[in-house]
Amino acid sequence: MLDRLLITGAAGGLGQMAREKLRPLAKTLRLSDIADMEPAKQGEEVVPCDLADAAAVRDLVAGCDGIIHFGGVSVEKPFGPILEANIIGVYNLYEAARAAGQPRIVFASSNHTIGYYTQDTYLTNDVPLRPDGLYGVSKCFGEAMASMYHDKFGQETAIVRIGSCFPEPKNHRMLSTWLSAGDFVSLINSIFAVPRLGCPIIWGVSDNDTKWWDNSAVAYLGWRPTDNSEVYRAKIDAAMAPPGRDAPDAVYQGGLFTAEPIHEE
Amino acid sequence: MLDRLLITGAAGGLGQMAREKLRPLAKTLRLSDIADMEPAKQGEEVVPCDLADAAAVRDLVAGCDGIIHFGGVSVEKPFGPILEANIIGVYNLYEAARAAGQPRIVFASSNHTIGYYTQDTYLTNDVPLRPDGLYGVSKCFGEAMASMYHDKFGQETAIVRIGSCFPEPKNHRMLSTWLSAGDFVSLINSIFAVPRLGCPIIWGVSDNDTKWWDNSAVAYLGWRPTDNSEVYRAKIDAAMAPPGRDAPDAVYQGGLFTAEPIHEE
Amino acid sequence: MLDRLLITGAAGGLGQMAREKLRPLAKTLRLSDIADMEPAKQGEEVVPCDLADAAAVRDLVAGCDGIIHFGGVSVEKPFGPILEANIIGVYNLYEAARAAGQPRIVFASSNHTIGYYTQDTYLTNDVPLRPDGLYGVSKCFGEAMASMYHDKFGQETAIVRIGSCFPEPKNHRMLSTWLSAGDFVSLINSIFAVPRLGCPIIWGVSDNDTKWWDNSAVAYLGWRPTDNSEVYRAKIDAAMAPPGRDAPDAVYQGGLFTAEPIHEE
Amino acid sequence: MLDRLLITGAAGGLGQMAREKLRPLAKTLRLSDIADMEPAKQGEEVVPCDLADAAAVRDLVAGCDGIIHFGGVSVEKPFGPILEANIIGVYNLYEAARAAGQPRIVFASSNHTIGYYTQDTYLTNDVPLRPDGLYGVSKCFGEAMASMYHDKFGQETAIVRIGSCFPEPKNHRMLSTWLSAGDFVSLINSIFAVPRLGCPIIWGVSDNDTKWWDNSAVAYLGWRPTDNSEVYRAKIDAAMAPPGRDAPDAVYQGGLFTAEPIHEE
Amino acid sequence: MLDRLLITGAAGGLGQMAREKLRPLAKTLRLSDIADMEPAKQGEEVVPCDLADAAAVRDLVAGCDGIIHFGGVSVEKPFGPILEANIIGVYNLYEAARAAGQPRIVFASSNHTIGYYTQDTYLTNDVPLRPDGLYGVSKCFGEAMASMYHDKFGQETAIVRIGSCFPEPKNHRMLSTWLSAGDFVSLINSIFAVPRLGCPIIWGVSDNDTKWWDNSAVAYLGWRPTDNSEVYRAKIDAAMAPPGRDAPDAVYQGGLFTAEPIHEE
Amino acid sequence: MLDRLLITGAAGGLGQMAREKLRPLAKTLRLSDIADMEPAKQGEEVVPCDLADAAAVRDLVAGCDGIIHFGGVSVEKPFGPILEANIIGVYNLYEAARAAGQPRIVFASSNHTIGYYTQDTYLTNDVPLRPDGLYGVSKCFGEAMASMYHDKFGQETAIVRIGSCFPEPKNHRMLSTWLSAGDFVSLINSIFAVPRLGCPIIWGVSDNDTKWWDNSAVAYLGWRPTDNSEVYRAKIDAAMAPPGRDAPDAVYQGGLFTAEPIHEE
Repeated sequence: MLDRLLITGAAGGLGQMAREKLRPLAKTLRLSDIADMEPAKQGEEVVPCDLADAAAVRDLVAGCDGIIHFGGVSVEKPFGPILEANIIGVYNLYEAARAAGQPRIVFASSNHTIGYYTQDTYLTNDVPLRPDGLYGVSKCFGEAMASMYHDKFGQETAIVRIGSCFPEPKNHRMLSTWLSAGDFVSLINSIFAVPRLGCPIIWGVSDNDTKWWDNSAVAYLGWRPTDNSEVYRAKIDAAMAPPGRDAPDAVYQGGLFTAEPIHEE
Repeated sequence: MLDRLLITGAAGGLGQMAREKLRPLAKTLRLSDIADMEPAKQGEEVVPCDLADAAAVRDLVAGCDGIIHFGGVSVEKPFGPILEANIIGVYNLYEAARAAGQPRIVFASSNHTIGYYTQDTYLTNDVPLRPDGLYGVSKCFGEAMASMYHDKFGQETAIVRIGSCFPEPKNHRMLSTWLSAGDFVSLINSIFAVPRLGCPIIWGVSDNDTKWWDNSAVAYLGWRPTDNSEVYRAKIDAAMAPPGRDAPDAVYQGGLFTAEPIHEE
Repeated sequence: MLDRLLITGAAGGLGQMAREKLRPLAKTLRLSDIADMEPAKQGEEVVPCDLADAAAVRDLVAGCDGIIHFGGVSVEKPFGPILEANIIGVYNLYEAARAAGQPRIVFASSNHTIGYYTQDTYLTNDVPLRPDGLYGVSKCFGEAMASMYHDKFGQETAIVRIGSCFPEPKNHRMLSTWLSAGDFVSLINSIFAVPRLGCPIIWGVSDNDTKWWDNSAVAYLGWRPTDNSEVYRAKIDAAMAPPGRDAPDAVYQGGLFTAEPIHEE
Repeated sequence: MLDRLLITGAAGGLGQMAREKLRPLAKTLRLSDIADMEPAKQGEEVVPCDLADAAAVRDLVAGCDGIIHFGGVSVEKPFGPILEANIIGVYNLYEAARAAGQPRIVFASSNHTIGYYTQDTYLTNDVPLRPDGLYGVSKCFGEAMASMYHDKFGQETAIVRIGSCFPEPKNHRMLSTWLSAGDFVSLINSIFAVPRLGCPIIWGVSDNDTKWWDNSAVAYLGWRPTDNSEVYRAKIDAAMAPPGRDAPDAVYQGGLFTAEPIHEE
Repeated sequence: MLDRLLITGAAGGLGQMAREKLRPLAKTLRLSDIADMEPAKQGEEVVPCDLADAAAVRDLVAGCDGIIHFGGVSVEKPFGPILEANIIGVYNLYEAARAAGQPRIVFASSNHTIGYYTQDTYLTNDVPLRPDGLYGVSKCFGEAMASMYHDKFGQETAIVRIGSCFPEPKNHRMLSTWLSAGDFVSLINSIFAVPRLGCPIIWGVSDNDTKWWDNSAVAYLGWRPTDNSEVYRAKIDAAMAPPGRDAPDAVYQGGLFTAEPIHEE
Repeated sequence: MLDRLLITGAAGGLGQMAREKLRPLAKTLRLSDIADMEPAKQGEEVVPCDLADAAAVRDLVAGCDGIIHFGGVSVEKPFGPILEANIIGVYNLYEAARAAGQPRIVFASSNHTIGYYTQDTYLTNDVPLRPDGLYGVSKCFGEAMASMYHDKFGQETAIVRIGSCFPEPKNHRMLSTWLSAGDFVSLINSIFAVPRLGCPIIWGVSDNDTKWWDNSAVAYLGWRPTDNSEVYRAKIDAAMAPPGRDAPDAVYQGGLFTAEPIHEE
């Protein structure tokens, strides 16, 4: 059990889910976001923070023995905000962690680092990057930063390329990318339980029938997801037509992100 | 749901099984063979056809939005009949499909395209071909034709290298190659459900304990077979001795086909 | 030195070159084509033959201890002539060779068996086939036939995927695909010199600076091409503009063949 | 069912387990060790033997149609005893088997043949060897011997790299390496049931959540382990702290063996 | 021949060399740097520019049909200047190129994107990134940006991971990493000559005897370096002792960069 | 330059060649064998030694800062002498080296560690072992020992799988396996020159046209062989017929060793 687990991006969807589900993982949860968060409950600390503020991040990280980094931009946006949160913010986080004794980090990367692979390919975790937008490029930057801090300083990071973490899959593409809350929690537990983590790239995806991603390289973590998007297929089929065979969300793993333009600021 | 699904080779074993099991997949099943078929039932059309007759095949395919191509020779035979049905017939089928708006095709290929691999090797779906007879060579031709029509025209085909599709496995080799009727049906469903099929090579085999073939490359289809030949092992052991260690059905994945001569016409 | 070397397709460009250059390889050259050939010179036999005529092919092959099979259609054509020469003809050839004591065969395959790979990929000789037309599909058939006769009967074949064998490269694509006459000859010599040939796939290409194909898997043959298309680059640059970046002969290894339609008969 | 199954090393932990569990596999179990064994029960023969004594080993093996070779040193020791039992002993065994008609052999190899791979790597069964001590080196020797007798004489051996075969896992590393008794028995059954065994390398490990080893290459054996160390995790967590991230049993697959010195005799 | 070739970083070592050697490649060379440059000669334009200034970069790129991007920080530095030049600057460059009709780009990446691989490994161009400092991380960012603009917009970039481009190798490590000026020039020529470039990763290294990097994947470019660092070995041996076997410049491909700290601003 | 280089097996063919050619590599050559050697010349020490005598080996190695280990049995023999020289002897050597400060070792391994691969396969240096006799098995043992001492103690060894090191190739198989004296010398120089050696497996073979072995993984050594067996082909062709296609020296890389029995003592 951890003493103090920092969750950044705690006001977002993933962050709120983590706040609720990861309560047993640490004596204290330190919750941070630039946006408004619900007030601290028992065993929680609420610490607003702008990730682009190096000094603030250093204070935020101090005293934590675990970090789950959901903070930053998580959709396609103009370069400015991505730069602030996902480039400068990540650098600030790693420098803060280095100053704080190198607590283990879970870095929320994304399938958008490899979004231009087609859906009929099955990816190991060492394929070359193919980001599908500025957001994806910023996550590639974060992965490179994690790798460098690991090689240079021994900082451990679990790079989790999260598929689609929602209560249930919302469309046909998510039948392949869905990560259930339960599997997310068991993944985080595995990451903090393994004696030696290293700096693995992990596909954050449930045990769906439709699969694009091969996690066998990280089988040493002992994470075995158990949920399956297939139980939602009929519901999705009833709610919407599947994408056409040449639609971006049928062609590319990154789905509609591949059709996004560069956003003007 | 399809409007009209064509099943060629409908008089054969696989064809009859498909006729019975795939009824829910389409409003109308169009059934075709050169041999006699049972009369059409409700929702069925029975259309005799010689695959070597280009005009007849064109008529047969017109109006169908899905094709399951079991037609042709399915065992080792002299070159003449293989040429007619499996070479000329396949060309006719693809030309007819091109004229008919490129309905999705399930092409029944065979493990005899790779029959000379030994049973102690585990094959991905991109291994070089090693056909075990004229029949196997003709299926290699069909796979090449499917690939070319896909690259040139966008025609989608599921190339299914069927193991042994029978009600139950009949001998020791089939413990590895058995494809149950239930898994066959779920495979066909997956092939027609996926928004973008492409032109994958799929091992048509159930979830048997003894495995020679790795389907992970087509995990995007969402097909997860559930039957297991193992439940028949005791029955087979009781019925017959296993092959000797140097017998063709113990050495080669293609089994006894590898011991077939070139058949005289 | 061979006793009698059969060269099929002897009236064609490759065949004429071989007739001239391979004279030292055998006591007698038996030259065959369906088209007119020059009369036999000293040490030559001229034997017209239709490859689709099984009995004639059997007679043609009898008494030969080496075969170079250039015969058949070598460009995109309607299916009819391809079927006659490249499908039926190849079957006839292998059956004739089997009857004649299995002389070593050089089978002229083609880069059009893999023509849909893009020019920025570097291919080993075991990549999956991607034929670019009916001609390419027929060559895939021939390769499969060679493989089967090797596995079943021990028939040895050198499958040579010839790039572009001309006196000099004629356009920008041929800077990558050019096979010089000298390198062709040294390849044939290596094929007949190696004690055990097996059934290798060989890229028939010179030591050009621009390369798409990796022959390291057949380094056991001891063939080391020495010519380089680069010496013709300036001449080609002067004679024509390079293809545009999206032109088929800039995109695909098969070049313009990929843009060919299915030819009507 | 075998006539007479020899189990060497029958006095050791694995041997005793095998003696009890494998009773149904053969009409007679021949049990051998250099140490004291319990007296023979019904259907058993107890034959003390020093593996370094060639003549004795020849007598021991004669009349057996199956061998499970657990005999020899199974921990890090001085070179002398390892040489006697694991080098000379293995040679004696293979020579004896050759004289006795080549009964199928199960050779107990070890994860210590690859002990210096780190725990965050996932190994196929064809990775280069990285032994972690003299014991591991001796097992590499045994694997090479098995391979040579297979290639030269057709002797079949199942090379089983046993993880940790105990009633239950004893520490955190064993969550990855544990092989249950039940899975051990099903493995032995599969080895003797397959018509053609060849000379495979098999990872002897249960279906644990935490995995380092990939057995897909031997899926043709039909062995599907069903036990999972995960059920013991809480018990182990309660009993001891996990190793630190830089401790040998957290870093290397071979665990503490990697920290063993060369033992003086 | 290009109309106007932009060379950024023209005041630096590489830039000056390019300015001199690439004169024949374009009618006009546009030379840019934030530092002072020599005045423009015939056929040159000298355009000072801060890469972090988006509008200035847009003006700089307008009218160019080729770009060689040497600009930015090229050694380990504090994050601030790296952010300005190598992160913001690269984004500005790609946006400017998009506005200017997508001239072909040569992006000077670095071996420091993979600097933590050890010197006894031989790298293909698709290995996972292992940057060795903030500079290396910024080059990973640039590579990801290039990939994304290629996939999304068709922008072509040659990503050149330059080893050590100096008149001659200066130390033992550079015997492996040296790129001669002559080979640099022939590489640039190849990049602009190939009809279709795509977005390849190219190891920028001469034909040295000591090699860490495999360029066979980009053999389609037709670049065949001809210089060899070996001719300087004696001179280097005479000038300095080789690094000790555990020194960073003997262990890691990135050499002393791996021993650099994070620089304070 | 080394102070004292030990050459074991100095009375053998390789040893005598090394004695002559490697004179410039060290101030003193210490030459050792169990057989008679020529008397010491200037700069030489002649030290007879039985490798199976641990104390003698320890004395032999003391004071040396480089070892070339040719000693031991180098052909197929009964197990007894192989055990003495190649098993016990190798253990003694590594223990002696450990006591002597771990001088760099060149271990003469052999192609007979992989002799059962067929001649039409092209081997990287990480293929699984396939020894072709007791001699080959003993060399596998030596390679495993070298690996273990490297991982456990940091002992560096160049494992050189020597092909056929003679003044010239003697038969057709040696066209593929020949290592010239000149290339041998340049290899040894490279091994001692590289700042960090590690424990590589190196194919000891010249730059022959006919190749079975791929040394690209050890390109970091900077060894570029320059001799080519091809210049001897005509001489060999004139002297003897090539082996038949099914003869062991045409089928297997290990040649006639694969046809050797187990030798009786």
